[in-house]
Amino acid sequence: MDTFGRNYRVSVFGESHGGAIGVVVDGVPAGIVLSEQDFMTDIDRRRSGAKGTTPRREPDVPEVLSGIYEGHTTGAPLAVIFRNRNTRSRDYSLFREVPRPGHADFVAGVKWHGFNDPRGGGHFSGRLTLPLVAAGTVAKKILSLLAGSFEVKAELLEIGGISSDVPDVREKWDRLLDETAEDGDSLGGIVGCTVDGLPVGLGEPFFCSVESLISQAVFSIPGVRGIEFGDGFNAARMKGSQHNDVFVSRDGKCATNGAGGINGGITNGNPIAFRVAFKPTSSISRVQNTLDFRKGELAGLEVPGRHDVCFALRTPVVVEAAASIALADLALSSMSSGYIQTAVI
Amino acid sequence: MDTFGRNYRVSVFGESHGGAIGVVVDGVPAGIVLSEQDFMTDIDRRRSGAKGTTPRREPDVPEVLSGIYEGHTTGAPLAVIFRNRNTRSRDYSLFREVPRPGHADFVAGVKWHGFNDPRGGGHFSGRLTLPLVAAGTVAKKILSLLAGSFEVKAELLEIGGISSDVPDVREKWDRLLDETAEDGDSLGGIVGCTVDGLPVGLGEPFFCSVESLISQAVFSIPGVRGIEFGDGFNAARMKGSQHNDVFVSRDGKCATNGAGGINGGITNGNPIAFRVAFKPTSSISRVQNTLDFRKGELAGLEVPGRHDVCFALRTPVVVEAAASIALADLALSSMSSGYIQTAVI
Amino acid sequence: MDTFGRNYRVSVFGESHGGAIGVVVDGVPAGIVLSEQDFMTDIDRRRSGAKGTTPRREPDVPEVLSGIYEGHTTGAPLAVIFRNRNTRSRDYSLFREVPRPGHADFVAGVKWHGFNDPRGGGHFSGRLTLPLVAAGTVAKKILSLLAGSFEVKAELLEIGGISSDVPDVREKWDRLLDETAEDGDSLGGIVGCTVDGLPVGLGEPFFCSVESLISQAVFSIPGVRGIEFGDGFNAARMKGSQHNDVFVSRDGKCATNGAGGINGGITNGNPIAFRVAFKPTSSISRVQNTLDFRKGELAGLEVPGRHDVCFALRTPVVVEAAASIALADLALSSMSSGYIQTAVI
Amino acid sequence: MDTFGRNYRVSVFGESHGGAIGVVVDGVPAGIVLSEQDFMTDIDRRRSGAKGTTPRREPDVPEVLSGIYEGHTTGAPLAVIFRNRNTRSRDYSLFREVPRPGHADFVAGVKWHGFNDPRGGGHFSGRLTLPLVAAGTVAKKILSLLAGSFEVKAELLEIGGISSDVPDVREKWDRLLDETAEDGDSLGGIVGCTVDGLPVGLGEPFFCSVESLISQAVFSIPGVRGIEFGDGFNAARMKGSQHNDVFVSRDGKCATNGAGGINGGITNGNPIAFRVAFKPTSSISRVQNTLDFRKGELAGLEVPGRHDVCFALRTPVVVEAAASIALADLALSSMSSGYIQTAVI
Repeated sequence: MDTFGRNYRVSVFGESHGGAIGVVVDGVPAGIVLSEQDFMTDIDRRRSGAKGTTPRREPDVPEVLSGIYEGHTTGAPLAVIFRNRNTRSRDYSLFREVPRPGHADFVAGVKWHGFNDPRGGGHFSGRLTLPLVAAGTVAKKILSLLAGSFEVKAELLEIGGISSDVPDVREKWDRLLDETAEDGDSLGGIVGCTVDGLPVGLGEPFFCSVESLISQAVFSIPGVRGIEFGDGFNAARMKGSQHNDVFVSRDGKCATNGAGGINGGITNGNPIAFRVAFKPTSSISRVQNTLDFRKGELAGLEVPGRHDVCFALRTPVVVEAAASIALADLALSSMSSGYIQTAVI
Repeated sequence: MDTFGRNYRVSVFGESHGGAIGVVVDGVPAGIVLSEQDFMTDIDRRRSGAKGTTPRREPDVPEVLSGIYEGHTTGAPLAVIFRNRNTRSRDYSLFREVPRPGHADFVAGVKWHGFNDPRGGGHFSGRLTLPLVAAGTVAKKILSLLAGSFEVKAELLEIGGISSDVPDVREKWDRLLDETAEDGDSLGGIVGCTVDGLPVGLGEPFFCSVESLISQAVFSIPGVRGIEFGDGFNAARMKGSQHNDVFVSRDGKCATNGAGGINGGITNGNPIAFRVAFKPTSSISRVQNTLDFRKGELAGLEVPGRHDVCFALRTPVVVEAAASIALADLALSSMSSGYIQTAVI
Repeated sequence: MDTFGRNYRVSVFGESHGGAIGVVVDGVPAGIVLSEQDFMTDIDRRRSGAKGTTPRREPDVPEVLSGIYEGHTTGAPLAVIFRNRNTRSRDYSLFREVPRPGHADFVAGVKWHGFNDPRGGGHFSGRLTLPLVAAGTVAKKILSLLAGSFEVKAELLEIGGISSDVPDVREKWDRLLDETAEDGDSLGGIVGCTVDGLPVGLGEPFFCSVESLISQAVFSIPGVRGIEFGDGFNAARMKGSQHNDVFVSRDGKCATNGAGGINGGITNGNPIAFRVAFKPTSSISRVQNTLDFRKGELAGLEVPGRHDVCFALRTPVVVEAAASIALADLALSSMSSGYIQTAVI
Repeated sequence: MDTFGRNYRVSVFGESHGGAIGVVVDGVPAGIVLSEQDFMTDIDRRRSGAKGTTPRREPDVPEVLSGIYEGHTTGAPLAVIFRNRNTRSRDYSLFREVPRPGHADFVAGVKWHGFNDPRGGGHFSGRLTLPLVAAGTVAKKILSLLAGSFEVKAELLEIGGISSDVPDVREKWDRLLDETAEDGDSLGGIVGCTVDGLPVGLGEPFFCSVESLISQAVFSIPGVRGIEFGDGFNAARMKGSQHNDVFVSRDGKCATNGAGGINGGITNGNPIAFRVAFKPTSSISRVQNTLDFRKGELAGLEVPGRHDVCFALRTPVVVEAAASIALADLALSSMSSGYIQTAVI
């Protein structure tokens, strides 16, 4: 199922080389100032063009089909589509029988009995993160209205093992990207995300904890291999006396933030902090071994087409979107479980 | 919301020192051989008693209220409860004003406006993993019936930074547990989980990918700080040529398993493999600083009660349960999206 | 699936002669004054005992397992169970092969492959309306807190075709009940329900319209054959000029209420008004024809046991519960889609 | 929320005079033969043009954005949109202050704080039944594949109180439509629907009973006032001995069908039979009283525009769609709860 959320409901659809991809968001409160232009800042951050990204260029112009009237959201579902323009009518049928390593060619064929749209990865393409980003833009607007000081910020912490902390990191990353491209290979990376300004109390116990919903949304991004909050995997090597965060002020602020802003699945007033690991791009130019399912034997496969050397470069805004969608859902849900003695409907 | 799943729906309820905790599972297929005794193997694995675990002893006897008749599931919802027996009528009201570091005392009080049950952590207690384990037992049964060679196995990979790979690990762990207990401190750990024998094709694109649902369920376990699949965070430092898994046989088997058995969110026929990081126990015996919210200043707090030195010791079976619940839901959902040309209803 | 609702989530479980029946309600706001005693008013209205109702007597004492602490709801899920006491260990296996007309014996057997609990109708018993009533009691409390003048009232409008409008209706109904009981037969009835005091704006367009959710909940009550709102089926025979309700004051009040308090699926400030048709009790004392599935031929069947002559007598409080559950869900959902410019989380 | 279903998930969006209306269907099994042309038979039945229907003409050409590839469904979400062409840029702002009786003008304005799209009724327009019909076409295909003899058929049983059983009904209806149009008034009607060929066992107990889900879907159609199954409201006036259906063959066939093909919320092998009451069109040409909210006093309102004299004429195919959507969801859900001993995934 391609639907997420209880009160902020996001349904993503589309295939990489089909007519259009898009998103329907049900549950957008009425009266939010919103125009097609508002989507462009985030869309531009996701766009290819920089070193290490694919040469495929798409205009990525959002077309709002419903849910906006006279510059405001109407309360009815918001539908936004993006036409696929720069598609190439190459023959993808080979990959049905000789699947690309690391891609969904094989599993999609089995799952959907060979009827999956194979072109450009079909529904499993990273292109589908575009409607996710659009839904994220609206989620951020909602969170900003509900919590005035809300701010979400994701950025690359690592490419190919080189941390953003080292001096001259831009040059080092560029050189690595160039070398890897020349090798016909690809790189992974790590994205860090911080969410500031949310009140104490968002999140639900158990299956709708802040971590549960953020991770559910983040793992919908193709190529994610791991997520960790606060001290993350390091926490497993700490003592309780080291890891516990000491409250220092009545708004819940702590001296440290090893919990990543979350206790018991609920925001505690400190910044939500998490890191996401992205694998290296699966499509590489060099010849790779894979199984030729027709013959039942290994074969050398050259994957043609236009690839990102490191698609992680384009993901910070996607991670922001995933987190914002999860948090907008929790924020709207929180309103429905508000202090009933003072609630109004 | 304390509910998980679309076709295998799990609702958890209860508070640590209330009358009972329990679970309702809606969507259990009829005709599965099941008795109260069947729950005991998993329950015993979660039970305290070993070195490093809490001295609180609970009989943890499951009482099935509905959904079983003459030794088989009936098709109607399964309800299982566990009475809380070994509760101590201590006064927890202090923690409303002087919250324990690392606990949900503060956030639960804010979220629920002071009406949360504070005793033993209330609804946020690790005790609530017991009904999760019960729902996991049934999920495992379903998966075994649907996939004959299904097997799920979780085990401790690390305690306090000491890997299970080192020689004499038991002794080393025991010594570390003893020393840490003497220090009045606590330890974290890492659990690895492998799921074998599932067919290719489980999982849904985007928000219901295998990773999305397993991570959603796993982060409902108190104290989880991170999750990673296959090569995990290491994948971010690999080249595509290293990380891509080469298919070697028509059932999808690969030469390596860097993807953790999942491509595009869908099982690919290789073992699902993931690791979960657990924080050190929040409750420690030594005096800790925290904020006294009444005075607005730091105060030394001693947390009384019975604690696990390392609650991660008890979590492998809980991780298995979380994964099995997510996978049972996907397996049942997969039946509903089966090959329609040959389907029967 | 036995679960209803998005923000007020009700999960019903149990079988007529099993250990216990019950309900878990997830989404109850914290801080509502609630005790086990509070459930008794509604439970007593559903209780048998009056003329025309079954001689089976059950104490129907609610046991709250979780979600209440020191007299208030905690915010965590509320779990309430009712032990089945007055069960009779009769042999119901006959009905697997010689199904009772009008009952779920046949369909439950097919659906659940013969593993359904057949005793007293199992999960399909009218006894399962008891947890529904308990969830309704809490829903009414929520609605009263959110809308001070909220009031829901259901009552019998007809028994066996005799309207409550006729003089001496009590005597006429009693006489009809006696005569029908003597004949070994049963009666149906019509219940009318009115909901006052809700604000304008509850309900969602399309699938979560007020009518959609009330009817979904009402048709979960065993034996319902129809539902109509406002002018109902008569509306189909009216002209627009007759049926349209003319607004007469700024709070939405209308001169007539042909729409039953709902426009476009949304409450319009007038009383919600609907009627529900209940079939006559399926179990009757006289011998009935049914198919003997073993022989494939008709057979005379005598249905033993204790029956309501007219179970509709006991349903007004159940109808109130179903409507209140649907409306509480919509009211809490409405909070999550509130006016975002003034919202607080 | 504008989303329906668990395994066949339908999300409707759009506004009457916005860019486009449409539907996303998530859960369509892969491999179903489907083209844009396949939608036209049902769309043409809903189209205006006959006597008594609106003069607004829309091409109603479906554009499939995703989910079909090489003539078959792909397994990924199906998105279908319809451009709004024949819109008139009239000023609807008057209705914000002087709401049309029987319309959603008033409630939409309150619910969405004046930001609703008021043009042509916005999201509350009957035009939104067009995407419902499209989702219904696919649902019918699924049901035909799952149950070879599946057939759904809805037809008008009454217009303005004149039953389709009377001789010369076409002439009588035409005359009544002409007279009513001359009077500037409107008519309601009753639609009957029968579903044949489904197996025994579809439907879930309680909140997802066949009646619960069909009624939820049917009440999403604008203008529905009531629904009844089998003997419907008449059942309330029958004796049990009259109303009970006697099984006569092992496939569940009964001598009568007072239960409308459903016992305990589950299909029993007999045709599902229900009737739906539609109100007369709210928009009428003659001057009506309504409240002028600016002045707080009654005013005469003339509703301009193009109206159906009797929109019920166009609804049989919409009723079929609503029922088919509900039943497709239950049929796919039924696959997920199949007999697990013989199930394959």
